Amino acid sequence: ARTGDPEVVYGAGKTPEQVAAIMATLHERHPERAVLATRLSPEAMLAVESLGADVHPVARAATLGPLPTPRGAVGVLSAGTSDAPVAAEAALTVAVHGAGVTEIRDVGVAGLHRLLAVRDRLDDLDCLVVVAGMEGALPSVVGGLTGLPLIAVPTSVGYGASFGGLAALLGMLNSCAPGVTVVNIDNGYGAGVAAARIARSASPDRSGRRANEAGRG
Amino acid sequence: ARTGDPEVVYGAGKTPEQVAAIMATLHERHPERAVLATRLSPEAMLAVESLGADVHPVARAATLGPLPTPRGAVGVLSAGTSDAPVAAEAALTVAVHGAGVTEIRDVGVAGLHRLLAVRDRLDDLDCLVVVAGMEGALPSVVGGLTGLPLIAVPTSVGYGASFGGLAALLGMLNSCAPGVTVVNIDNGYGAGVAAARIARSASPDRSGRRANEAGRG
Amino acid sequence: ARTGDPEVVYGAGKTPEQVAAIMATLHERHPERAVLATRLSPEAMLAVESLGADVHPVARAATLGPLPTPRGAVGVLSAGTSDAPVAAEAALTVAVHGAGVTEIRDVGVAGLHRLLAVRDRLDDLDCLVVVAGMEGALPSVVGGLTGLPLIAVPTSVGYGASFGGLAALLGMLNSCAPGVTVVNIDNGYGAGVAAARIARSASPDRSGRRANEAGRG
Amino acid sequence: ARTGDPEVVYGAGKTPEQVAAIMATLHERHPERAVLATRLSPEAMLAVESLGADVHPVARAATLGPLPTPRGAVGVLSAGTSDAPVAAEAALTVAVHGAGVTEIRDVGVAGLHRLLAVRDRLDDLDCLVVVAGMEGALPSVVGGLTGLPLIAVPTSVGYGASFGGLAALLGMLNSCAPGVTVVNIDNGYGAGVAAARIARSASPDRSGRRANEAGRG
Amino acid sequence: ARTGDPEVVYGAGKTPEQVAAIMATLHERHPERAVLATRLSPEAMLAVESLGADVHPVARAATLGPLPTPRGAVGVLSAGTSDAPVAAEAALTVAVHGAGVTEIRDVGVAGLHRLLAVRDRLDDLDCLVVVAGMEGALPSVVGGLTGLPLIAVPTSVGYGASFGGLAALLGMLNSCAPGVTVVNIDNGYGAGVAAARIARSASPDRSGRRANEAGRG
Amino acid sequence: ARTGDPEVVYGAGKTPEQVAAIMATLHERHPERAVLATRLSPEAMLAVESLGADVHPVARAATLGPLPTPRGAVGVLSAGTSDAPVAAEAALTVAVHGAGVTEIRDVGVAGLHRLLAVRDRLDDLDCLVVVAGMEGALPSVVGGLTGLPLIAVPTSVGYGASFGGLAALLGMLNSCAPGVTVVNIDNGYGAGVAAARIARSASPDRSGRRANEAGRG
Amino acid sequence: ARTGDPEVVYGAGKTPEQVAAIMATLHERHPERAVLATRLSPEAMLAVESLGADVHPVARAATLGPLPTPRGAVGVLSAGTSDAPVAAEAALTVAVHGAGVTEIRDVGVAGLHRLLAVRDRLDDLDCLVVVAGMEGALPSVVGGLTGLPLIAVPTSVGYGASFGGLAALLGMLNSCAPGVTVVNIDNGYGAGVAAARIARSASPDRSGRRANEAGRG
Amino acid sequence: ARTGDPEVVYGAGKTPEQVAAIMATLHERHPERAVLATRLSPEAMLAVESLGADVHPVARAATLGPLPTPRGAVGVLSAGTSDAPVAAEAALTVAVHGAGVTEIRDVGVAGLHRLLAVRDRLDDLDCLVVVAGMEGALPSVVGGLTGLPLIAVPTSVGYGASFGGLAALLGMLNSCAPGVTVVNIDNGYGAGVAAARIARSASPDRSGRRANEAGRG
Ligand SMILES: Nc1ncnc2c1ncn2[C@@H]1O[C@H](COP(=O)(O)O)[C@@H](O)[C@H]1O
Ligand SMILES: Nc1ncnc2c1ncn2[C@@H]1O[C@H](COP(=O)(O)O)[C@@H](O)[C@H]1O
Ligand SMILES: Nc1ncnc2c1ncn2[C@@H]1O[C@H](COP(=O)(O)O)[C@@H](O)[C@H]1O
Ligand SMILES: Nc1ncnc2c1ncn2[C@@H]1O[C@H](COP(=O)(O)O)[C@@H](O)[C@H]1O
Ligand SMILES: [Mg+2]
Ligand SMILES: [Mg+2]
Ligand SMILES: [Mg+2]
Ligand SMILES: [Mg+2]
Ligand SMILES: [Mg+2]
Ligand SMILES: [Mg+2]
Ligand SMILES: [Mg+2]
Ligand SMILES: [Mg+2]
Repeated sequence: ARTGDPEVVYGAGKTPEQVAAIMATLHERHPERAVLATRLSPEAMLAVESLGADVHPVARAATLGPLPTPRGAVGVLSAGTSDAPVAAEAALTVAVHGAGVTEIRDVGVAGLHRLLAVRDRLDDLDCLVVVAGMEGALPSVVGGLTGLPLIAVPTSVGYGASFGGLAALLGMLNSCAPGVTVVNIDNGYGAGVAAARIARSASPDRSGRRANEAGRG
Repeated sequence: ARTGDPEVVYGAGKTPEQVAAIMATLHERHPERAVLATRLSPEAMLAVESLGADVHPVARAATLGPLPTPRGAVGVLSAGTSDAPVAAEAALTVAVHGAGVTEIRDVGVAGLHRLLAVRDRLDDLDCLVVVAGMEGALPSVVGGLTGLPLIAVPTSVGYGASFGGLAALLGMLNSCAPGVTVVNIDNGYGAGVAAARIARSASPDRSGRRANEAGRG
Repeated sequence: ARTGDPEVVYGAGKTPEQVAAIMATLHERHPERAVLATRLSPEAMLAVESLGADVHPVARAATLGPLPTPRGAVGVLSAGTSDAPVAAEAALTVAVHGAGVTEIRDVGVAGLHRLLAVRDRLDDLDCLVVVAGMEGALPSVVGGLTGLPLIAVPTSVGYGASFGGLAALLGMLNSCAPGVTVVNIDNGYGAGVAAARIARSASPDRSGRRANEAGRG
Repeated sequence: ARTGDPEVVYGAGKTPEQVAAIMATLHERHPERAVLATRLSPEAMLAVESLGADVHPVARAATLGPLPTPRGAVGVLSAGTSDAPVAAEAALTVAVHGAGVTEIRDVGVAGLHRLLAVRDRLDDLDCLVVVAGMEGALPSVVGGLTGLPLIAVPTSVGYGASFGGLAALLGMLNSCAPGVTVVNIDNGYGAGVAAARIARSASPDRSGRRANEAGRG
Repeated sequence: ARTGDPEVVYGAGKTPEQVAAIMATLHERHPERAVLATRLSPEAMLAVESLGADVHPVARAATLGPLPTPRGAVGVLSAGTSDAPVAAEAALTVAVHGAGVTEIRDVGVAGLHRLLAVRDRLDDLDCLVVVAGMEGALPSVVGGLTGLPLIAVPTSVGYGASFGGLAALLGMLNSCAPGVTVVNIDNGYGAGVAAARIARSASPDRSGRRANEAGRG
Repeated sequence: ARTGDPEVVYGAGKTPEQVAAIMATLHERHPERAVLATRLSPEAMLAVESLGADVHPVARAATLGPLPTPRGAVGVLSAGTSDAPVAAEAALTVAVHGAGVTEIRDVGVAGLHRLLAVRDRLDDLDCLVVVAGMEGALPSVVGGLTGLPLIAVPTSVGYGASFGGLAALLGMLNSCAPGVTVVNIDNGYGAGVAAARIARSASPDRSGRRANEAGRG
Repeated sequence: ARTGDPEVVYGAGKTPEQVAAIMATLHERHPERAVLATRLSPEAMLAVESLGADVHPVARAATLGPLPTPRGAVGVLSAGTSDAPVAAEAALTVAVHGAGVTEIRDVGVAGLHRLLAVRDRLDDLDCLVVVAGMEGALPSVVGGLTGLPLIAVPTSVGYGASFGGLAALLGMLNSCAPGVTVVNIDNGYGAGVAAARIARSASPDRSGRRANEAGRG
Repeated sequence: ARTGDPEVVYGAGKTPEQVAAIMATLHERHPERAVLATRLSPEAMLAVESLGADVHPVARAATLGPLPTPRGAVGVLSAGTSDAPVAAEAALTVAVHGAGVTEIRDVGVAGLHRLLAVRDRLDDLDCLVVVAGMEGALPSVVGGLTGLPLIAVPTSVGYGASFGGLAALLGMLNSCAPGVTVVNIDNGYGAGVAAARIARSASPDRSGRRANEAGRG
């Protein structure tokens, strides 16, 4: 983590024992800050829970060690319940990377009134993460309602011509709302890292950032 | 046109002389109904104009012979001016195929207030054609505002990862608004034929349809 | 269901308990109309059966609550038995959405005489759903025999260069029969919603539609 | 031409002078048999015409030297006029490779009656070449009407999701009619070579084949 | 089987009981000719074996009823042992469709001497089926050695950029050996049907074909 | 521009007259702020120059009206000269959207020493835009050197398997450096809008942002 | 192995018994040189271990018989632990094919300092194999640091838009570092063969190569 | 050229004046070694010719300054004349990078006897570059005849399903001949750089290499 970010364990393709061992080692090295583990199987969640980690089942993730004091505010918007794991991974990653986070769910494009109903809540945020599968239209609509930095996360939710999230990914890359940027399919983690950086740098107390990045290099 | 539809000349890959000759022949055979020619080059438009055809430059199309009395009402919605040729091809095709048509322009998803402002006009229609390029999100949003039959037309407007309209096509096929059906990229003609059939069958005066399809073979 | 459509539960990725619980809740809220659940595993079918739902095993679907009185007539055509689940999903969806439905099976393009033998039955219908996998040629052939609104459903049946239904999808989008519109691969549900809307609006008793959509919002 | 086939010049990417020079050289070497040149520009057609070659403008091809006596019978079927160049290239190639050929045009799948009207003419043939663009459905329908060897040629005719002939190619590879084999997009030449071989070997006078292939190796 | 071909059961996606029941029914209807079943699971092979079917484990196929007297000769060439199931499916299909068949194995392009050693055996054949996975180069090499009709079968053998047989398919479609035609990935069955038709029509005793196709509809 | 952004004219597909007319109209409406026009042909650049616009030939763009006072600092990094137009479009867009901008050129991944030599200059920036074609590796390397928000822009520079920028796009979406976000191929404009928003919100004088966005709708 | 290479058994799709039997047979034929078996399941590893083979679990491979004396030096570089199996397969293949090999791990592009720290070790090598998944950027960076022959191996490590290694493959094919050549996704074996050939031919003692290839056919 | 390679100008997208100016500047800096310019338009060839550069029209390239004394021997094999520009670019690049080069043309896979006739000439070479379009099978066949390092270059020669060289590229990546490595479509330059490095390191006089790379940074 040369860039000042917390350590993260990518759980896919690792045994529960491996995940638990890496988390423990990283935690010992820096007990004062959180380690994040993502893409955990149910077995890996049990294994890290017995280490004392906080498990987040929807996000399929866990943290070990204290979360940083949040600076700045990120909103994570999503439509269907199928996108929930990716949205939760993004939200938890934001928190672990030191920004505040609000989850706004069930605001799909085919039910605009629900989205319009939460529009005012967007005004107090510094950055948005917008998660959507299938046609991936939500970032365009949200991007038309706000001038905030907006990171779009396509999900692999869908079937047939969704081609594992490709349809949503292409939709987001072609968004007619200017200023939308995009991460890989299902990459809530990457969106969370980017959003936390943006929100933290937008927050008034700037001495903090310099401090916590001092050791990099 | 065994199915009762008017004759249509597809102008792409034909010389102006060929287009004009085919239009003239088809018109002579049935002077009482319109011939439609689509995908016309500027030169072909001039050639058919001197035959007495009505030229529609935005639609890159022309008609020769009287249009039928419209039955039923189709709305053709589009966002940007780049999508105008496809929207105009769809609208003209609807008219030639015997339904009434209203064009509603400049209602992109990144400017929702304009779309919401026309929402009430949708109530009196029998079928919608929704034209969009880039991410192709408009049909999902419109489909969430209405229960009408809705035909989505992806356009090749865009660049890079729009892949010639593929992004919009995939977006529309994966629409989270139920009941959206889709035609080929830039196929305003096909959407117009389908919409006219739906709108005509939805209109009260049903004797007409049976009559005008009596001769089919 | 702001658009007046019945509530639908998409069973893929949900546990049997989740499906049953959602069906029960939706049914309680509006016991006077049907709830539809699709893409059910065998276990989910058992779970909803014990709630009193009607299970449709071929369609991998179930309904709870009374079906609406049908208005208008939809035909669902398919070729091989491998396409049966998608055709059955489409047919059940039509019924749940308030239109009458006739299934016409075993009419593939490589055995034209069977298709020609049913041609007269198409005359009394208001809309067609045509389901086909592999090369997806059936909609073009049927579209040449009739002037009805026609919704084509590609299926993922096939192997090798069918690429999970892509070959059939592209075939249908490029149909040389004008007026064919297309839905996502295996999306019998979407085709059924669209077809029911078209058939209902084509049926004489129009007061019904306005009534049952009055509450939309 | 070690395999006993006539010499063929592929004109794409060659100057008119190059094409004419190669044709002249090959003709001089074997004045008793035909040289075929394909994919000729209008300029190349003029250049070879002044050599005394027979130019076939629809096929964009030319021959120099006497055609062989035909043995066996190939039918070349096609739908629209846009597919005519590919069908003509196939038919000319068949003739140059020593088989008889019949062209049957305007038999698209969306107008079945025209196809059914020519069905009896297929009985006297030894092999079929079926040319189609857009959705490429014609081989499946023809393949269901006959048990003859059938070679399908996809064309690049179409736009949008035809992806330069990919849709037709995939459709033909997935044909539900057994025994259909396929060549590259627009490859009338390759289909013609294969069909001529099949038809010649099916014709009674078999001494000929052995004779004319005696020099190979 | 309107085209005079034997009945074939495609076993993929069917239960062992379904396969056995269909084979039995078809056999009863025409006990004088063979029924072919392909793509059988080990369980389905056991099920049909107890019906009295002949099981071909490498081909993952079985036949019930007497094979026809062979007419004409087909060669089936393949390279590695991984392509054996597809080659065996092709060879068995040829036999069931009434032609003689010779299998020539282990003749990959990276070991040319083995291929050159069998070259003379090709002279007595009427048609070739060439099966290859990975880069699919074998048909080009064989096609350069012979003037016979040649059907290429790409297989899904390979990994990474073979993309499930796509690399081999594209290679074969672009073969520089003229007259190569291609079937779907892993489609030994389709190649066998086509090859048997070609070989039978090339064999001297032609009365047979007409007779056995007399009943077609 | 409901979101507080300046007005932008997308010049692709518009005549020089259309571009000039739209720029003039928008400028008249708000002479106190800049209008940006992108994707200008040489002719369109001349046309807007005679209006008094500032033309930026490398960026193929022009501005009319005073640029805002910059707040925050964006770095635009690029490797080869082929990527210069996209980098320049990004840099100009940043300036028009109110942030300061530094261009850092000729820092490709195959010449690391040049990149390492500028590393210290990155420390004073608020956001990076990293432009790269071909394999698109630069954002991963830069992302490993800094913890700043980083927007990657793939370009269509390359040939063969670059597939018009697809290789670079996929590379960037799969970046192993966390927190990289991506825009469409060649979309310097979109990256510039996003980067300006991020940099402005990171700059100390925050009253400004609220003020200049006060009128949004 | 006509080309002088050792015999190799590709274990994918073979039973443990088949792998063990082939290894034993090949070993008996030439007990003086090693047989390599790759892509082994855990069960196959056990089976060949009881034959006396040396099992390499990370590489999922085994050897039977003495390795040749190494000539020349190959470096195998990789970034993450997920790429370890492919890197190990490459390294073992190099050894079996008679060259020396050094593995350099954990040198990803997002942590340049680790790569720069090993740069001097590259000077003594004759050829590099560079293994990377996700965006596949490592070969470009390494290629910029050295003038050695460099073989890039994309891996299927990644998710979403990595498309099973396609992103890494395209990245490597488009490398801006000249002289990078590429093998199939996950093909450590192929890279190892090529690298061993290059390193051996670069080593001073050249008599050896001629000797050990003398028997080739 | 930190890696010791000569300077190279990539002419695509540069004006003749730009190419000439860059060549002149690079030449002045190091008049003792050659500058290479590739992908030159006819106009650029004229422009650099008047500088005194040696123009290679088939390779669409030019050199300025003395070529190095060759060390080691590379063979460049190709099939058709359409692949000649890519083969010539590879051969010239080899020479400029200091290795000897032999071009072997007209050795396509569909005419094996010509390839077998040159087989003995391969024995004296150190590295092969094998150029092929269409199905790209030549490297597999050559790779089976020799144990030399072999670099395969797919070309964009072909049409339809060659997809601009994709078919050849995939074929080469999936080659069943072990040890084949691959470069980008049409990338004769890249293959030449790699081959020259391999051949030079294989040549006895090794002091040279160290010397001429001594200045690298
Ligand atoms: N869910 C995720 N998606 C993508 N990358 C991740 C994810 N979680 C962790 N990572 C990345 O994986 C790295 C750790 O990988 P590893 O060392 O294999 O556990 C972290 O530093 C992150 O950059
Ligand atoms: N813009 C269009 N897009 C797709 N198909 C069209 C279009 N215009 C006409 N067609 C179809 O082309 C047929 C006429 O083709 P042709 O005989 O070649 O002029 C019509 O019957 C329509 O089915
Ligand atoms: N239309 C065509 N499509 C594909 N291949 C062709 C075509 N015409 C000729 N050929 C092939 O091109 C070879 C001649 O190529 P060339 O020597 O370049 O003229 C012939 O032997 C044929 O194999
Ligand atoms: N990991 C591997 N990846 C690709 N090809 C391999 C691999 N291992 C072995 N091979 C090839 O497979 C051949 C043996 O295949 P088989 O006879 O099916 O066991 C060898 O000669 C190699 O060319
Ligand atoms: Mg969604
Ligand atoms: Mg749009
Ligand atoms: Mg079907
Ligand atoms: Mg067609
Ligand atoms: Mg093979
Ligand atoms: Mg670059
Ligand atoms: Mg990697
Ligand atoms: Mg070639």
